[in-house]
Amino acid sequence: MNTSSFRLANRFVDVKSSPVRDILAVVGREDIISFAGGIPDAELFEAADFAAAFDAVLSQQAARALQYATTQGEPELRELLAARLSRQLPTTADQIQVTSGSQEGLFLAGMALVDPGDVVLVEQPTYLAAVQAFSLAGARLVSVPSDDHGVLPEALAAAIAEHAPKFVYLVPNFQNPTGRTMPASRREQVADILLRTRTPLLEDDPYGALRFDGEPVPPIASLPGMAAQTVLQNSASKIMAPGVRIGWLRAEGDILRALEIGKQAVGLQSAVTDQLAVAHYLANCDLDAHIARVTSAYRVRRDAMVDGLRAVLPAGAEVNRPEGGMFLWVRLGGAVDTAEALPRALAAGVAYVPGWPFYAAEPDHSTMRLSYVTNTPEVIAEGLARLARAFGW
Amino acid sequence: MNTSSFRLANRFVDVKSSPVRDILAVVGREDIISFAGGIPDAELFEAADFAAAFDAVLSQQAARALQYATTQGEPELRELLAARLSRQLPTTADQIQVTSGSQEGLFLAGMALVDPGDVVLVEQPTYLAAVQAFSLAGARLVSVPSDDHGVLPEALAAAIAEHAPKFVYLVPNFQNPTGRTMPASRREQVADILLRTRTPLLEDDPYGALRFDGEPVPPIASLPGMAAQTVLQNSASKIMAPGVRIGWLRAEGDILRALEIGKQAVGLQSAVTDQLAVAHYLANCDLDAHIARVTSAYRVRRDAMVDGLRAVLPAGAEVNRPEGGMFLWVRLGGAVDTAEALPRALAAGVAYVPGWPFYAAEPDHSTMRLSYVTNTPEVIAEGLARLARAFGW
Repeated sequence: MNTSSFRLANRFVDVKSSPVRDILAVVGREDIISFAGGIPDAELFEAADFAAAFDAVLSQQAARALQYATTQGEPELRELLAARLSRQLPTTADQIQVTSGSQEGLFLAGMALVDPGDVVLVEQPTYLAAVQAFSLAGARLVSVPSDDHGVLPEALAAAIAEHAPKFVYLVPNFQNPTGRTMPASRREQVADILLRTRTPLLEDDPYGALRFDGEPVPPIASLPGMAAQTVLQNSASKIMAPGVRIGWLRAEGDILRALEIGKQAVGLQSAVTDQLAVAHYLANCDLDAHIARVTSAYRVRRDAMVDGLRAVLPAGAEVNRPEGGMFLWVRLGGAVDTAEALPRALAAGVAYVPGWPFYAAEPDHSTMRLSYVTNTPEVIAEGLARLARAFGW
Repeated sequence: MNTSSFRLANRFVDVKSSPVRDILAVVGREDIISFAGGIPDAELFEAADFAAAFDAVLSQQAARALQYATTQGEPELRELLAARLSRQLPTTADQIQVTSGSQEGLFLAGMALVDPGDVVLVEQPTYLAAVQAFSLAGARLVSVPSDDHGVLPEALAAAIAEHAPKFVYLVPNFQNPTGRTMPASRREQVADILLRTRTPLLEDDPYGALRFDGEPVPPIASLPGMAAQTVLQNSASKIMAPGVRIGWLRAEGDILRALEIGKQAVGLQSAVTDQLAVAHYLANCDLDAHIARVTSAYRVRRDAMVDGLRAVLPAGAEVNRPEGGMFLWVRLGGAVDTAEALPRALAAGVAYVPGWPFYAAEPDHSTMRLSYVTNTPEVIAEGLARLARAFGW
């Protein structure tokens, strides 16, 4: 019996803690090799550059860094982010809203657009923390059938016609959880449908810069006509460092004002210290060179994991080889239930995330998400050996 | 005509941008003396201590500071905050949820407890950014008649009986906007009513440590039986620095889990850099000595403003002399409308916040909030001279 005088809001009846976060709480243990989190390898952080950036900020403009500031974000940070985004899509500083990481951006977009009961269309499977954020705003999540290239255009058109969604949420580059990327031709088909039906897009692109192979594909927001009906989300977490909690939204028109008012209500402004430190880093360090270092390390790890898995997976099981990002996706097929198997894997000393929480509906229980970025190839090999033991491959 | 394809959520129909934030955007001008914001004097920040704290964190544990972390907050920060809170109320580290400033804490508490249409009881007048945060969760705000000592106990009991509120929101110490403090005897009466009716309390205490005169009054949360039905909110913003965006909630039981899940959805965790820097500051610097320096400066400024106002205010106007905090409250009385007068004041080179936005209902349009902490006594004198000219005193 709950004897507390607090009566929790109904929105917490259906919103569960993130299974990924809950698994991460377990896998802090030293004896477990974790493929579970989307955790960058801290060895690759530019620690000296960030130390220098914070030092410069705190020694040269402490009074500003420690003070209140505007809700939209520090001007020089927005200028630098806009310049970087403009490589893909012309962007001005006043089209940028700084957020405390991608997660806050997803939450703000949901809050700005979703009334309780409104439909948001998502990929199948999709990023589960986005589902959590939209659900708290009252969204009803509807999955659009998807293949290895993302949402199926005909299915998207049908779902828009049936549900009149408030927006469509897509992660076109190296999607979380599957690692898949939507090719340019599919992006054009999707844009056509969104433009024709005037359906807004929340395009989430935390991983796009982490490409190992092939050619970059322009964001859907950059296709003709799409910029005005897209909120494009980026983050420092995967390309610089998650601990500073800096993300940014790019949008145009009225929605920007709603995002800013939401940001006021949620936290006034992102930490000024971190905003200025990230700006200092962007202005004085070579982010592209850092990304090149990170992607060449991650490429080797991806190959170690994909090749290692292909050597041990039983017949009928499938694993993809993503062209970038942090995750790959395994479908074991048949009656295997990866959630049921997780305790055995943890006992064997290896962690992953079962695939089911990433489905807004009808999960494939034989799937799992593995991250290849946190561990070296040697550790990946040992982790896969443990995984094979746990599953009896 | 709005030609955007974005259809904003209805929660943004009634939720307006904060008038304080909008005034602050104007008063960035060098030629305006601002009494408007609750902006600490940056000259009083312990810039060297914070520079040293960030330097220690980034040079000694960068890999941790730049990485993802747990949602509840860094353990050593929670330990240090719990130890400090325990001076007033026994608190353990696991009863602390770190937030990105007070504002996020208010938002999380509203989201955890409020279903659309639920009533939240507030003081008359009350802190307007709290109203904004609760409104986004769907709250209906109901004002409880209040006097110079806070809410009137009989009126509180009647409002609880009539509205069955999800919680009561109070700022018992040096309230924003009025600067008033609830005496111990009133706190006991309020606690009796809350306990008898099993009504939860959100006790917001960002200013309590900034006491200039008189004896500290224990938080309502510390009265017998109240800890279990109170969420107690504190912040680094007013006693250390707002730019780091670090606040903390103290709670017990189920509500802690809802606050943590909400925090996950809103932003995963507060900036790890700032959490560790604040922890380093608390462990290695003398916060009490800093607070003593700040309060002795603020005391002089409060007196400069109160005495200066009393010398110029017309007959019938009232100003209080708060025992601490950042704000005082002026009631001009009669037909004066301080919102209408604001453009004249800005033209004369002085800014304040009109009182009306702080009322959830039936505003007294003759009121204004003045902050005495941002400016030196000399600047305060000049600002009051401009105010007198603008109002024709």
